[in-house]
Amino acid sequence: MNEITMRLQIDDYIKSALKEDISNEDISTNAVMPDFVAGSVELIAKEEGIIAGLDVFERTFKLLDEQTTVERFVKDGDKVTPGLKLALVKGDIRVLLSGERTALNYLQRMSGIASLANKMVKMLEGTGITLLDTRKTTPNNRIFEKIAVKIGGASNHRYNLSDAVMLKDNHIAAAGGVKEAVKMAREYTSFVHKIEVECENLDMVRDAIEAGADIIMLDNMDHDTMAEAVKIIAGRALTEISGNVTAEKIESIKDLGVDYISSGALTHSAPILDISMKNLKADKQ
Amino acid sequence: MNEITMRLQIDDYIKSALKEDISNEDISTNAVMPDFVAGSVELIAKEEGIIAGLDVFERTFKLLDEQTTVERFVKDGDKVTPGLKLALVKGDIRVLLSGERTALNYLQRMSGIASLANKMVKMLEGTGITLLDTRKTTPNNRIFEKIAVKIGGASNHRYNLSDAVMLKDNHIAAAGGVKEAVKMAREYTSFVHKIEVECENLDMVRDAIEAGADIIMLDNMDHDTMAEAVKIIAGRALTEISGNVTAEKIESIKDLGVDYISSGALTHSAPILDISMKNLKADKQ
Amino acid sequence: MNEITMRLQIDDYIKSALKEDISNEDISTNAVMPDFVAGSVELIAKEEGIIAGLDVFERTFKLLDEQTTVERFVKDGDKVTPGLKLALVKGDIRVLLSGERTALNYLQRMSGIASLANKMVKMLEGTGITLLDTRKTTPNNRIFEKIAVKIGGASNHRYNLSDAVMLKDNHIAAAGGVKEAVKMAREYTSFVHKIEVECENLDMVRDAIEAGADIIMLDNMDHDTMAEAVKIIAGRALTEISGNVTAEKIESIKDLGVDYISSGALTHSAPILDISMKNLKADKQ
Amino acid sequence: MNEITMRLQIDDYIKSALKEDISNEDISTNAVMPDFVAGSVELIAKEEGIIAGLDVFERTFKLLDEQTTVERFVKDGDKVTPGLKLALVKGDIRVLLSGERTALNYLQRMSGIASLANKMVKMLEGTGITLLDTRKTTPNNRIFEKIAVKIGGASNHRYNLSDAVMLKDNHIAAAGGVKEAVKMAREYTSFVHKIEVECENLDMVRDAIEAGADIIMLDNMDHDTMAEAVKIIAGRALTEISGNVTAEKIESIKDLGVDYISSGALTHSAPILDISMKNLKADKQ
Amino acid sequence: MNEITMRLQIDDYIKSALKEDISNEDISTNAVMPDFVAGSVELIAKEEGIIAGLDVFERTFKLLDEQTTVERFVKDGDKVTPGLKLALVKGDIRVLLSGERTALNYLQRMSGIASLANKMVKMLEGTGITLLDTRKTTPNNRIFEKIAVKIGGASNHRYNLSDAVMLKDNHIAAAGGVKEAVKMAREYTSFVHKIEVECENLDMVRDAIEAGADIIMLDNMDHDTMAEAVKIIAGRALTEISGNVTAEKIESIKDLGVDYISSGALTHSAPILDISMKNLKADKQ
Amino acid sequence: MNEITMRLQIDDYIKSALKEDISNEDISTNAVMPDFVAGSVELIAKEEGIIAGLDVFERTFKLLDEQTTVERFVKDGDKVTPGLKLALVKGDIRVLLSGERTALNYLQRMSGIASLANKMVKMLEGTGITLLDTRKTTPNNRIFEKIAVKIGGASNHRYNLSDAVMLKDNHIAAAGGVKEAVKMAREYTSFVHKIEVECENLDMVRDAIEAGADIIMLDNMDHDTMAEAVKIIAGRALTEISGNVTAEKIESIKDLGVDYISSGALTHSAPILDISMKNLKADKQ
Repeated sequence: MNEITMRLQIDDYIKSALKEDISNEDISTNAVMPDFVAGSVELIAKEEGIIAGLDVFERTFKLLDEQTTVERFVKDGDKVTPGLKLALVKGDIRVLLSGERTALNYLQRMSGIASLANKMVKMLEGTGITLLDTRKTTPNNRIFEKIAVKIGGASNHRYNLSDAVMLKDNHIAAAGGVKEAVKMAREYTSFVHKIEVECENLDMVRDAIEAGADIIMLDNMDHDTMAEAVKIIAGRALTEISGNVTAEKIESIKDLGVDYISSGALTHSAPILDISMKNLKADKQ
Repeated sequence: MNEITMRLQIDDYIKSALKEDISNEDISTNAVMPDFVAGSVELIAKEEGIIAGLDVFERTFKLLDEQTTVERFVKDGDKVTPGLKLALVKGDIRVLLSGERTALNYLQRMSGIASLANKMVKMLEGTGITLLDTRKTTPNNRIFEKIAVKIGGASNHRYNLSDAVMLKDNHIAAAGGVKEAVKMAREYTSFVHKIEVECENLDMVRDAIEAGADIIMLDNMDHDTMAEAVKIIAGRALTEISGNVTAEKIESIKDLGVDYISSGALTHSAPILDISMKNLKADKQ
Repeated sequence: MNEITMRLQIDDYIKSALKEDISNEDISTNAVMPDFVAGSVELIAKEEGIIAGLDVFERTFKLLDEQTTVERFVKDGDKVTPGLKLALVKGDIRVLLSGERTALNYLQRMSGIASLANKMVKMLEGTGITLLDTRKTTPNNRIFEKIAVKIGGASNHRYNLSDAVMLKDNHIAAAGGVKEAVKMAREYTSFVHKIEVECENLDMVRDAIEAGADIIMLDNMDHDTMAEAVKIIAGRALTEISGNVTAEKIESIKDLGVDYISSGALTHSAPILDISMKNLKADKQ
Repeated sequence: MNEITMRLQIDDYIKSALKEDISNEDISTNAVMPDFVAGSVELIAKEEGIIAGLDVFERTFKLLDEQTTVERFVKDGDKVTPGLKLALVKGDIRVLLSGERTALNYLQRMSGIASLANKMVKMLEGTGITLLDTRKTTPNNRIFEKIAVKIGGASNHRYNLSDAVMLKDNHIAAAGGVKEAVKMAREYTSFVHKIEVECENLDMVRDAIEAGADIIMLDNMDHDTMAEAVKIIAGRALTEISGNVTAEKIESIKDLGVDYISSGALTHSAPILDISMKNLKADKQ
Repeated sequence: MNEITMRLQIDDYIKSALKEDISNEDISTNAVMPDFVAGSVELIAKEEGIIAGLDVFERTFKLLDEQTTVERFVKDGDKVTPGLKLALVKGDIRVLLSGERTALNYLQRMSGIASLANKMVKMLEGTGITLLDTRKTTPNNRIFEKIAVKIGGASNHRYNLSDAVMLKDNHIAAAGGVKEAVKMAREYTSFVHKIEVECENLDMVRDAIEAGADIIMLDNMDHDTMAEAVKIIAGRALTEISGNVTAEKIESIKDLGVDYISSGALTHSAPILDISMKNLKADKQ
Repeated sequence: MNEITMRLQIDDYIKSALKEDISNEDISTNAVMPDFVAGSVELIAKEEGIIAGLDVFERTFKLLDEQTTVERFVKDGDKVTPGLKLALVKGDIRVLLSGERTALNYLQRMSGIASLANKMVKMLEGTGITLLDTRKTTPNNRIFEKIAVKIGGASNHRYNLSDAVMLKDNHIAAAGGVKEAVKMAREYTSFVHKIEVECENLDMVRDAIEAGADIIMLDNMDHDTMAEAVKIIAGRALTEISGNVTAEKIESIKDLGVDYISSGALTHSAPILDISMKNLKADKQ
């Protein structure tokens, strides 16, 4: 994660999360540790998966105390196994204790998403299909989750409603047809934004291609219709299939020659990867 | 969800989530719908589960346009089944389209958590044990997730590091022992806060009871040790077991007479409940 | 301007501008008008140009007092002439006085930009070239200025660094060449983002086309080189010329068949359009 | 620019401007430069004028990365000429690229204003008249623009509606006359604030003087009336003429012995001073 | 209190104060009152004094629920006596309970200050001296406290460090003398700001007058020196004595003919005025 | 004060207070000191009392300039006497001058509260009663005032409405009785929160004890009734008496064997402790 992104986009989220967990003070830690005590704690994987979010993990502690250091033994994207020591966090023990939960909440969630993305990417290996995420992210966590998706080996669909056009049935109905919708979008928005059209049938596919759509989503079509759609499109637009990536689904579509498949589950239903902080100890004095 | 909570705690999160999804404008919707069009859209369940978060769902649209109305056919905590129409949202179609994803992201997540909580509460039925959440929540979503847990029938553990004392091994070590730690906490923090001690063995349990701990967590003990612990405690403190609520675990502990069991999975690994907005249409004019 | 955009993106800027002008209170108005007095004031053009920003003008007063109303006699994009009455603002006179400067500062600036854009668009009439803005906007005023550009009849280039790729010489050097840069961008960013390459010579143009660039900017080339570039591109990418739109320049490039020309002056050096609020009077009682 | 002002008033504006330009990340730079590369870039004037805003320029980069350094070859207020190297910026090339536009947007605007102010101050040389700005500034840029005005050699009128009283026709009408208005203002506001009265005729001037106004603005009077006004005032109040500083105007008023003339154009219509960042290069390794 | 001031300056402080008191929810009220219950509560004075802050009191409830109404039986500045019913607050009982403490904390403090100001103003009656506050206000409460001072009948000194010049010994030393300091201030700051000089002896008074200071503070001088100072000043500047307003002090200075005396105690040490909310009851249904 | 608390909770308040005092710039200081001058100033007590808030005092300067240092000669909780030098502040003189008022406003208020708390704690010595604060704090200053209370030797009651249950007459009426109210609170809120019941008579005391209330407040009872109440409670709950700590009151209750007495005056009516910054001087060069 780039340092500029951290400062401009991420720090505010982490600070807000820290305040959510410490609304006035950590009364347990402050009660028993009135003063600074140098110490360290280990970060240890408890499950197999892909680690993601080490920068966020580290930043959480640094936002509490810049003196905290995190010595890493793995890097984002690495596969980890139960018991593996991922990092050693050193600093004021009070910081290690007060920041632990927030730092882990980010790291576990990002790693959970990266792990799921990685598993699904592997299911798609050899199909030539790129796996994409969606906007079905946890509120106020999109930037973390989209980064985790990439660390896991998948790719990002549009970031939000402002950076690409996606014309759905309601947009098309409002415009009066696929061609009209694409034309209106082309005129309204910056020419740098691609236009994607959700197509429910072959007529829509034909209209979208004629209108110059950049991306065509094949929405709820059966295999034969999709095959026909791909033939119609003939490389004149990128193709995307949305949803429900199961082994069967992949089997059934891998011959179609589509470019992308997107999956909401990547971000909305990935279980966390279990990681814990263990063996906290004060430095000998 | 109480209106004051909505205004003071929740509105800012929802607004931030809306800005995350609309960094400058919804270019698709604005391109094809330059003007106000009244319309409606249905909210429909696609899975069986417990619905939670209808207030947040509604508020999301109202924050975009106060004129939006949500007619509800179910209420938070109700069980829903695939195809069930949950609500009818009416207003400016542009608001319905631009707010859809954010509103659903909240509703699906809260409902997913309520559904899992409900399932786990049922597993504990008849045991006399109350199911609790933890602080393993998604950053900047704690208030939503804690509310969802209650809607699902479980209860909340402490909200954050500021509203109760939890003395873990490191706190105890820093203080010089269980009794010293409890005493320091009692002196440091307001007398309105309860003190919980994580105990790893029976000596710690005895010390905690003597020190007047309000709650004792039995941490990683085997069944016999826990049984002995409960006997030692003899109702002088509340008892909590933490983690891994499986059917076997429940079977194995239901005879112990403990008061609480807490589960991080409730909030960190609940898959969403699939719910969608369908049949958006403009009002006839 | 869409109401959602107003609420999510614009309100905060206007409120901040109002606080910039009223750091504790409007001491002049409050000294002489302790109580509510209903009244009205006229909005009058003092120069010829294109009016833009009436929604922002109105919103400024409504953010001070929702009861304020603005009856409009023109709409955004209309040509106005000196002395023309544009609107009648009604409400608490104290609101009309305290909000006047901020409301006009926005309206005059947006109208100045729309007027200049309109003038330049007319210079390009018949050339088939679309006029674009740039990111050379006034800090914390981009959304207002980009909207004004569109009201004036020109189009928007990318909104910011996040919604499209623009590869400049330094990016290309870092990547090791045009092709490498385009490939890295394609892999790194979402497939919904177009990729533009700034080309300084024909070799770069060829490389960019081969690499599949979506847009090619012809940077500082003479007429013949540009003509050759357009021939090489042959419709396989959109073409943009950047900078210095003078009558001569337009004459010299109108035969080239390029798609876009962008101008920073549109936003960074447009003088305001002079508009004033006159004839404020209290309602007869 | 004083460091306290930078921290308390300016940093938030710059950060907001950076987020306006980088809503999630700089996808071009991050795609091709995954890692830190040390480098430098030159800041070069492309037009003749007065440079202003070097502190803001530097701060923009430092807010992205504190390690960035700016070696300056000129200082605020210096006259610059086309081709002159103004500064050398050193740091992470990604920071230099991602911050360039925002830093230049501030520097060019401030320098444009300083240059115009300087030109107008020179027109007033020898007249004994001090040139003032107004509140006609760009929203959310007042502090930058007022500082630029001073760097250009002119002076500031009141900062906003809270730090001085200006009684206009509507205030006077509401109070029931000039004397009543001045009296009400004197009573209402802190005695540290000066009171200025906009006078349209000699009766108002006489009333204002009698009422003890500190400053008298001669509003839309012809030369003879102004001469008479100055005679009436006889040094008992400061005098200000507002608006339209042309060579003729200056010729026509320089004999009047007024103290101040204010000009909105200084801030609302100054074109930018063209300055660019050139010759970015990575350090040899 | 003017509505614009409320919206631009005060609402944010009240909201922040409400969040300080309700960090997630009012658990007592929400536990026993799950639903809306209409009701009312009386506001009753428990001490004699001057009431101040009724607008802030009302706004606190309205920010929780716009439907809350406050029927007032007194107005700001009125003298109240123990047992007097000041207002009737009607609305959702949960709002009345959850907002009570914050609303009263503001009202009691503002009324305490107004009461003390009123008492001191009365001590100065007949002396011709105007009582002023200082910047010794409670952090983040200045606007409330300055308003309370005025409601109590005293006047405001400068609002903060930005709206008037006050040259103290250190400023004078840095400038190299009183005259130099006044000259530098005159040049640096807007001509609308008055300049006050803290003088410790008669030489400084003479220098300040010569330099054209607008206000002269007589700092720690004995009676004869002050008398001499006033004679030297001879009406050419306003005069202020600072600090320690006791009955004796007033006796000793009332013959001096100074204009102002300022008192920090007005805001930093005024005890609250005891006011309570009583007889809360639900409406009969 | 713990560094995490400073960063997460306190910095924002101090910054806001600094902006309240410096809305654009300190015009006096900046006029006469254009450049950095190293210097120092002494912090001196002018009254006898308990010093509290040195961390906040220091942080105020550091937020303006990290280079500022504060050498302390006393520590929070120490008794100070008139003339005692408490600290030496070193840094840029402009920072010392511009931050002085805000830093002192915090320090004086916190020390005033600590001093009063200390005096009252001494009055309770030997009674076995712990002195508590209340929620009657100055808006947006609770965290500072609660810390000052502890520095003065007293203890904190609940922090706000979210961290403990306090059932008052209206809550009890809404619930239908003491037992019902306690039961509802027990079910609604986290089990980590204690429940306090305000009891007006012995029946309520009996009900509260039976319902398992953790804390019982004896509200407006006479001595005999309180004695009877304590007998009834018999150690089964903590006991609190609220309000009006006078010498007589203490005499009259010290035999009762209650645990706590709370006092609003501690925070709402403590006069400040007079402390000043003196002998500011520039370092010799």
